[in-house]
Amino acid sequence: MARTQPYNQNCPIARTLDIIGDRWTLLIIRDLFLGHSRFGEFRQSTPRISPKLLSERLKRLEEEGLVERALLDGYPPRAEYRLTEKGRAIFPVLYAMGTWGAEYLFDGEPELRDAVLTFIESRVPEYRRMKEMTARSEGRTGTSGRQAESLSQ
Amino acid sequence: MARTQPYNQNCPIARTLDIIGDRWTLLIIRDLFLGHSRFGEFRQSTPRISPKLLSERLKRLEEEGLVERALLDGYPPRAEYRLTEKGRAIFPVLYAMGTWGAEYLFDGEPELRDAVLTFIESRVPEYRRMKEMTARSEGRTGTSGRQAESLSQ
Repeated sequence: MARTQPYNQNCPIARTLDIIGDRWTLLIIRDLFLGHSRFGEFRQSTPRISPKLLSERLKRLEEEGLVERALLDGYPPRAEYRLTEKGRAIFPVLYAMGTWGAEYLFDGEPELRDAVLTFIESRVPEYRRMKEMTARSEGRTGTSGRQAESLSQ
Repeated sequence: MARTQPYNQNCPIARTLDIIGDRWTLLIIRDLFLGHSRFGEFRQSTPRISPKLLSERLKRLEEEGLVERALLDGYPPRAEYRLTEKGRAIFPVLYAMGTWGAEYLFDGEPELRDAVLTFIESRVPEYRRMKEMTARSEGRTGTSGRQAESLSQ
């Protein structure tokens, strides 16, 4: 569960996975986009990650420049985590995964899917922007694979 | 290295990661997009994956409906792997990872980056389509974060 061996390839996908491919990392980044910023909030959102591993993952993200950590005034001082510009730029990866998951992995659960997407839309401005952009592109280039398929049945 | 515990969350990103989040899986899918279809080709492209693990990953992708396996005539008969429509639909995830990696993880290696991207572009029609689509969107909505930043310096 510790940090895995890097792939060490010249492929930009492999290099990206060397940073965000470890277990839990993308879910922590997801939580940052959802507005979580405190250690306890990440713990609550993904309770099955151990505190030690969560610390490691956050530290790695900080080292790689995707996350910055600020100490808030007060006693005891509390750490707050925020995405940097480099971290926010990873959003299209989450968007693509979420879109694919929503399309293919909620068969028989349309209400759950809609509720989850509505929740994300209400919390993540990046999601709203990207959804609008995609809708405009698809408006010009036609429907997606699965939509076209269901229309033809 | 075996199949990891699923996250078991209702989040579409977590569900997607339960399928494609295992180590090597996305690199195998990348190779399928690059046109590889034989076991030996995958081995050559990512030599550090063991044959056993590669088999497991391909089997899992087949079970989940992202890949289909055909036996080719001949002696000995040979297996050929192809992406299904569900598998091809994962492309935006790879595209987003590749774009982010090319933008942030090739500092000081612009020639290597350009060579890699030219290679991908020559081999993957999905990449060319998505690149055109993105260029059109950005033409309307302005430059990306990092481009805007460098323009202002």
